[in-house]
Amino acid sequence: MKFLAANSVGKQTVKLNNAPSVIATASIVGPKEGQGPLGQYFDKVLDDDLYGEKSWEKAEAKFFQEAVEKVIIKGHKDKQEINYLLGGDLLNQLISSDFAARQLGIPFFGLYGACSTMSEAMALGAMLVDGGYADNVVCAASSHFSTAERQYRFPLELGVQRPPTAHWTVTGAGAALVSNQGEGPYITMVTVGKVVDMGIKDSNDMGSAMAPAAADTIIAHFIDTGLTPNDYDLIITGDLGRYGKDIADELVKKAGYDISAKHFDCGVEIFSPSQDPHAGGSGCGCSACVLAAYLIPHMWDGTYNSMLFLATGALLSPTSSQQGESIPGIAHAVSIHRTK
Amino acid sequence: MKFLAANSVGKQTVKLNNAPSVIATASIVGPKEGQGPLGQYFDKVLDDDLYGEKSWEKAEAKFFQEAVEKVIIKGHKDKQEINYLLGGDLLNQLISSDFAARQLGIPFFGLYGACSTMSEAMALGAMLVDGGYADNVVCAASSHFSTAERQYRFPLELGVQRPPTAHWTVTGAGAALVSNQGEGPYITMVTVGKVVDMGIKDSNDMGSAMAPAAADTIIAHFIDTGLTPNDYDLIITGDLGRYGKDIADELVKKAGYDISAKHFDCGVEIFSPSQDPHAGGSGCGCSACVLAAYLIPHMWDGTYNSMLFLATGALLSPTSSQQGESIPGIAHAVSIHRTK
Repeated sequence: MKFLAANSVGKQTVKLNNAPSVIATASIVGPKEGQGPLGQYFDKVLDDDLYGEKSWEKAEAKFFQEAVEKVIIKGHKDKQEINYLLGGDLLNQLISSDFAARQLGIPFFGLYGACSTMSEAMALGAMLVDGGYADNVVCAASSHFSTAERQYRFPLELGVQRPPTAHWTVTGAGAALVSNQGEGPYITMVTVGKVVDMGIKDSNDMGSAMAPAAADTIIAHFIDTGLTPNDYDLIITGDLGRYGKDIADELVKKAGYDISAKHFDCGVEIFSPSQDPHAGGSGCGCSACVLAAYLIPHMWDGTYNSMLFLATGALLSPTSSQQGESIPGIAHAVSIHRTK
Repeated sequence: MKFLAANSVGKQTVKLNNAPSVIATASIVGPKEGQGPLGQYFDKVLDDDLYGEKSWEKAEAKFFQEAVEKVIIKGHKDKQEINYLLGGDLLNQLISSDFAARQLGIPFFGLYGACSTMSEAMALGAMLVDGGYADNVVCAASSHFSTAERQYRFPLELGVQRPPTAHWTVTGAGAALVSNQGEGPYITMVTVGKVVDMGIKDSNDMGSAMAPAAADTIIAHFIDTGLTPNDYDLIITGDLGRYGKDIADELVKKAGYDISAKHFDCGVEIFSPSQDPHAGGSGCGCSACVLAAYLIPHMWDGTYNSMLFLATGALLSPTSSQQGESIPGIAHAVSIHRTK
């Protein structure tokens, strides 16, 4: 087997030689996220999670749209200059992103990768910019605690008690504007993940379901590139939470790489234990808004020079779970560097 | 506003200068599709739509996976040589494609564009191959009458009567292998669609919901490229059906282009009126398997030299419909030419 594709680096990784730049980010979160340890970093914190709408779903579409509009303004671009919007959310048929895209009028690629959506969008968006198929793309993802709970688990009104391994879905949206003109940070490489399933069936233990997929992509990235954890300031996972994070560290260690000292999980960091989020935050919005509010801005200010960003998705489906299926996971990685 | 992206042709269209080639296609359909006018062209016709599984959902995942395996074999490739699988289906959380991707072990981009998925996959896949980010990609989509009806409308057991504007969701999967090496047909251009919504609220009239989005993308393609309907042998829409097809023709005509003589709608062609499909076939699998079984093979045999292929999606959501929302549509176009 040989690789012909000009930009291939090993089996699952490609190099972006024209180094598309993240020129702006934007984030909007709900009240609980605003009260968390990263609260000061978000562009906007909502007072209530209905956001003046008649349903949580409409609220989510509204703040998805607003995050995209905000990132375009912060990047000093006009909506007409954005070639593509790439994004998604957790809701069936991607209603949050669909309705936002309808209002925005930007050519739209709808993506579904559960909580891996933000890095799926950035992987695809960066390749489209790098290859000369777009000048500017917006990558965005959202989730909402109340829309997700009632779709995936139980109506909130039931007041079902949640086990310690359960995650708290983040209410929030994050957006990144990726451009062929800009001064960094740059998306330098992309490692696209496979669907990995170790047989977890508990919809209240998403971290354990996602961890093997995160580990698989991290290991593939190191093997493909010859890099090691020492080459990154941070290795970021989306929302493995307290339990999944340890499992991923362990799995990656078995392959000969110790990431534990560099490992930053957005789901662990977004809430403090005193907020009682159980295993941690989750949802596409979790990694999207932590990337947008905290991680990329700390590359602009020089705190971090390099990071491997993986949003991590548990492909949970109530239908397939009821039919006895386990929960597969997926994770895509993008390398981001402050300088070329 | 100016366009810098190397491959841009106007606002929504890009040109693929390295002409990625469709080197193989594969299709599997259910019994009703096999009895239709295109029955002889499909690679495989199932005897029953459970396909030996315990649920229709498991059957759909099985024939999605089999279509992908078949296209890889027909393209004389090994699974290891496929850089990415791009695809999706109509089911919540894309369970058909997720579970197929789990078995296949190919890096996977999950896409949701309702019935527009096949051209969304081909647009992205062709850009990734053209730009040197992949040697070979498989683009695939599936749908299943019984899984779709119970998710979107009513349990089949209810026996609800369907109005004349209702579509019959196609049971089937189609896959295309797009490669940087091959002898055509070539994907030469991509026009990415916007979400368009003219206010249709009837979940039994998907054709009218999709037609404005199809027209919008077709018109954008002609404006961007300076081409006219005369430059194509066929202008193909996914599943507008009998009513939506006429509406799209009318809308495109108002912009000064008459496509009616060249317009081939997969939803109209896949069933004969005697099969009582009402408005026609629909579902991501409809355009995917007609493209794979009938259209691309008729480029190989020289019947057609050029086509503009648009899968057309109605972003119907039971949740948003119950909250009073209308049904937005989206359509993406890829130009396919027999020679470079």
